[in-house]
Amino acid sequence: MKKVAIVMGSKSDLEVVKGAKAILDEFEVENEMKILSAHRTPIEAAEFFSTAKENGFGVIICAAGKAAHLAGVAAGHTTLPVIGIPIKSSTLDGLDSLLSTVQMPPGVPVATVAIDGAKNAGLLAIQILALAEESTKNSSSLTEKLKKYKQNMADKIFLDNESLNK
Amino acid sequence: MKKVAIVMGSKSDLEVVKGAKAILDEFEVENEMKILSAHRTPIEAAEFFSTAKENGFGVIICAAGKAAHLAGVAAGHTTLPVIGIPIKSSTLDGLDSLLSTVQMPPGVPVATVAIDGAKNAGLLAIQILALAEESTKNSSSLTEKLKKYKQNMADKIFLDNESLNK
Amino acid sequence: MKKVAIVMGSKSDLEVVKGAKAILDEFEVENEMKILSAHRTPIEAAEFFSTAKENGFGVIICAAGKAAHLAGVAAGHTTLPVIGIPIKSSTLDGLDSLLSTVQMPPGVPVATVAIDGAKNAGLLAIQILALAEESTKNSSSLTEKLKKYKQNMADKIFLDNESLNK
Amino acid sequence: MKKVAIVMGSKSDLEVVKGAKAILDEFEVENEMKILSAHRTPIEAAEFFSTAKENGFGVIICAAGKAAHLAGVAAGHTTLPVIGIPIKSSTLDGLDSLLSTVQMPPGVPVATVAIDGAKNAGLLAIQILALAEESTKNSSSLTEKLKKYKQNMADKIFLDNESLNK
Amino acid sequence: MKKVAIVMGSKSDLEVVKGAKAILDEFEVENEMKILSAHRTPIEAAEFFSTAKENGFGVIICAAGKAAHLAGVAAGHTTLPVIGIPIKSSTLDGLDSLLSTVQMPPGVPVATVAIDGAKNAGLLAIQILALAEESTKNSSSLTEKLKKYKQNMADKIFLDNESLNK
Amino acid sequence: MKKVAIVMGSKSDLEVVKGAKAILDEFEVENEMKILSAHRTPIEAAEFFSTAKENGFGVIICAAGKAAHLAGVAAGHTTLPVIGIPIKSSTLDGLDSLLSTVQMPPGVPVATVAIDGAKNAGLLAIQILALAEESTKNSSSLTEKLKKYKQNMADKIFLDNESLNK
Amino acid sequence: MKKVAIVMGSKSDLEVVKGAKAILDEFEVENEMKILSAHRTPIEAAEFFSTAKENGFGVIICAAGKAAHLAGVAAGHTTLPVIGIPIKSSTLDGLDSLLSTVQMPPGVPVATVAIDGAKNAGLLAIQILALAEESTKNSSSLTEKLKKYKQNMADKIFLDNESLNK
Amino acid sequence: MKKVAIVMGSKSDLEVVKGAKAILDEFEVENEMKILSAHRTPIEAAEFFSTAKENGFGVIICAAGKAAHLAGVAAGHTTLPVIGIPIKSSTLDGLDSLLSTVQMPPGVPVATVAIDGAKNAGLLAIQILALAEESTKNSSSLTEKLKKYKQNMADKIFLDNESLNK
Repeated sequence: MKKVAIVMGSKSDLEVVKGAKAILDEFEVENEMKILSAHRTPIEAAEFFSTAKENGFGVIICAAGKAAHLAGVAAGHTTLPVIGIPIKSSTLDGLDSLLSTVQMPPGVPVATVAIDGAKNAGLLAIQILALAEESTKNSSSLTEKLKKYKQNMADKIFLDNESLNK
Repeated sequence: MKKVAIVMGSKSDLEVVKGAKAILDEFEVENEMKILSAHRTPIEAAEFFSTAKENGFGVIICAAGKAAHLAGVAAGHTTLPVIGIPIKSSTLDGLDSLLSTVQMPPGVPVATVAIDGAKNAGLLAIQILALAEESTKNSSSLTEKLKKYKQNMADKIFLDNESLNK
Repeated sequence: MKKVAIVMGSKSDLEVVKGAKAILDEFEVENEMKILSAHRTPIEAAEFFSTAKENGFGVIICAAGKAAHLAGVAAGHTTLPVIGIPIKSSTLDGLDSLLSTVQMPPGVPVATVAIDGAKNAGLLAIQILALAEESTKNSSSLTEKLKKYKQNMADKIFLDNESLNK
Repeated sequence: MKKVAIVMGSKSDLEVVKGAKAILDEFEVENEMKILSAHRTPIEAAEFFSTAKENGFGVIICAAGKAAHLAGVAAGHTTLPVIGIPIKSSTLDGLDSLLSTVQMPPGVPVATVAIDGAKNAGLLAIQILALAEESTKNSSSLTEKLKKYKQNMADKIFLDNESLNK
Repeated sequence: MKKVAIVMGSKSDLEVVKGAKAILDEFEVENEMKILSAHRTPIEAAEFFSTAKENGFGVIICAAGKAAHLAGVAAGHTTLPVIGIPIKSSTLDGLDSLLSTVQMPPGVPVATVAIDGAKNAGLLAIQILALAEESTKNSSSLTEKLKKYKQNMADKIFLDNESLNK
Repeated sequence: MKKVAIVMGSKSDLEVVKGAKAILDEFEVENEMKILSAHRTPIEAAEFFSTAKENGFGVIICAAGKAAHLAGVAAGHTTLPVIGIPIKSSTLDGLDSLLSTVQMPPGVPVATVAIDGAKNAGLLAIQILALAEESTKNSSSLTEKLKKYKQNMADKIFLDNESLNK
Repeated sequence: MKKVAIVMGSKSDLEVVKGAKAILDEFEVENEMKILSAHRTPIEAAEFFSTAKENGFGVIICAAGKAAHLAGVAAGHTTLPVIGIPIKSSTLDGLDSLLSTVQMPPGVPVATVAIDGAKNAGLLAIQILALAEESTKNSSSLTEKLKKYKQNMADKIFLDNESLNK
Repeated sequence: MKKVAIVMGSKSDLEVVKGAKAILDEFEVENEMKILSAHRTPIEAAEFFSTAKENGFGVIICAAGKAAHLAGVAAGHTTLPVIGIPIKSSTLDGLDSLLSTVQMPPGVPVATVAIDGAKNAGLLAIQILALAEESTKNSSSLTEKLKKYKQNMADKIFLDNESLNK
């Protein structure tokens, strides 16, 4: 199974980005976290993204704030699916990060999730890897876990309902 | 190889959505176009999305405008990756569609592309299927085509540069 | 008299949504609170909304945040009036919730109130039920209470004026 | 059966507002169109709204653009449900109209539909009157028509699907 | 000399609105504060605004938040200059209040100041009254005070500069 | 009676700004139009604004687009009331002009009207001059004309209503 | 004298970007136009930006639309001043381009001009080069030309004023 | 070497603006801080900006909030490069400051950095002065320091990566 790269533009993004790692760990999907800046370490970022596929990665998650170029730069260097997490930074409530991440020009897609949506970035990576797993084996433990995860979310709501009406 | 479903909320979205079909056809990825409304055909939409996996689909692309709920509804009914295209409708320049598509709550991701970004939705689906293809065969014709596509984009810019400086 | 359903997309919306229940209780209008997610419990949500009318509900209030699809999904499954409360979630100050709730496509209306406007959602439900009550009885205790409520709001302002000028 | 008042702030809103009248006429719901400005005819507007109930109206629809105060003023003068249509005027794409209409303070609700959402305003009025009709008769021709309307919308999508795949 | 009316839509606006009273008191301009709601006391508001001129007021300042209709309603009932203060309420950072106040239709102006700009509302009223004073007397104590106020603002900056460079 | 200065930042603003002149001419208020740029003719602008009062002006109207600094610069140089018209320029629908005009810091007010609201700028100037006129004469022809103007607006709506119902 | 690089992300930006070249040519500043995409030709872009200084460039102007990463990528690869022109693309009126260009993280500045502000990008480059020229020669023909340019702008306004009052 | 002027519109901007001074001091670039308001000290501001060049300044940094006119006013009075820092003030998250600073009309550029981007304003000034320095000496200590600064930023990320993976 391919690994997931979780790349963030700055160490200050870690608190949010952890949510992606947590869900990948919970699903037992191998992952690596890196700090790489499109602006401060452009050469290392280009190197990492352009060799990610041959280094065993299947999906790249990029988190960045403000003028968030990281996911777009990743997408320019690889044919792997790139998932972008717009990080809410100090002003503008993350609207700048969202637009910088999602409004990619034709030819270079970034699969963007909600502002600070790290958990969903992780889940999306898992959905993508589950598809790959099924292609190999005609069955997928990740798909089974995703179904169970969905069921757990529903069950939690059923329980919330019970406690609500007490 | 899994098929790609291209679902739009209204026939009026067809002009934009065609861009997704065109790129999938160009990459020879099997796909089906459907009109399904989260609000006007909720039962048929739920039916389609919850059986999409067993019906041979690997990725679902959903395009909708205004209060764009289609991709979110799809994501609620399947563990497949769901790609959302926010359609620019008559007012607010597509900001309503973008926010309705991308700002999904934790647990239910939608891989959102740019407003009217149909071509990128198609390319993202291809990237996801390429990963699955590689998992099976240790080689992927889709990945090769994606590389060639990237090269063609670059070549087009080199040509544009030449014509610019004449 | 019909009941009012107060549905919220997540238990975390409860603090705001309570305001709707409080005003309905104050007007002695029967109501039921439920947690139902358009994305995490789509089947139960569809079931609830499509049988709400036959189960004695006259109005459905839906509260949700971010990509707020709950009210729209409700409106797709019922001919009852659906009132939407956009919940301010952690980023974007509720603009995403507002646009996701109010910008419904033609054919499927959602009666949207202000961001976090739970009390007004309750009052709107009461106004709607008052109209039904009058149709039956040619007089309406709800209408009388609404008039008194309006008078009390005015009286409170008159009192505030007095204290202002002391 | 109560009548529906369709009030617009300026004759220039007529082109959009007609959509509300058309759907009410289609459902054979009695309605009256008026031009009344919160700013240019405040006395007549106050008079109309405060006597609307005794004059046989059951629902008031108000359409206005820019700093759209009409629906809010109506809601201040009546206990009837007031539906607001934010009209897209020349600048800001109707965002000003939307916020001026929907962001009502606690105590005075306006049931807001989408920008230029005249048809939905009409349908919402019909849903409200259907509820009243059922209260009287235990059956409602409006509810039956609403169901048929919903079915027709779905059928149109099924037909669109057929033509799509030809 | 005419008086200035300072009207606010809710007692909760008082903390901001005080700034207008403070500057009027500082300039020794007679003023009265009132709470009047366009929505909760529409009759009293209409009465107050339409008789303001004959009751000795020369300028009306209106402060309101959210769907801020108060200044517009005032302007509909009087030929006096009306100054609007958009109050920042709990969500949307006051953008709703600003647009509801400033985007008035042709024929009914509201002189809008910055969000929470109470002091500037007071100063604008003083500038307007200074003009009236000069018309009578060919000299104006208010104009003299305004000049001194401007000088004091400049002096404060000169002092700030000195302390900056220590 | 004092004159009104109508200053615009660029000749391209003339088409909109004419609306201010038209209403002032209709009310027979003496006025002068000028082009003065805060950025391209800063010295002449400062000169004009700082001598406007002694040159017989009573009110200054400033119209500018984009980063619209003209009204703010005027307000920095005079104690006369300054009215700002934010001009909708090619992008951002005039939001930049509106915020640059209205969000003035404490101490230096600009009376801002709607985007492209030239007619209202003219009417506001007239209301201000009417107050001055009344102070002198205890009667004001401008106030009489304003009342008539208001009545005409109402009458136009009554006529529109008649034609609507034909 | 150093050259100015004018880089655009796509040939479709040429129509706007020409404005920068025109002003540089008018000031007789040597310049070169290039098409380079941060996403479609990332390697060539990195190569160009990181060798720009040694290749005789003194300032780099970058124009891009939507998720506009070009200027930021340039700034990551050079210590030369980088000027960003946000291009208004088909939706969102250029707000996405503006925020993607201007909201750079600490350490990597982009000197951003107005949306579609190509002429100002050129002028800013000239101002920067003029400073360099003065450092060498203690006099600068560019500064002289800038002064004349400023005077011409003022003169044009004086002429506009004359024609206005005819 | 020319000096850098750091001008702020109000003493309350100091906390942010300090960041510009700190980086200039770190690079040993001579600088002066001033408080000058476009609205409260217009004459002193005009005087300072129009004589800045002859007083030995090479770059002017202007920081202001709300309707931020300071940088634009500076640019109107000088041919020196002017850098604008939009200050986030109490409401609207600095969007007003950003648009007022960046959306300058053709002919009068302001090099705008991110909201509260004081450090980048300083770095941009240094980049501009480094260019001048190189023109004189064919070598530049500032350029060397900028390269080292870039390297330090990269090194910090490499260190962060190490601590991340411990």
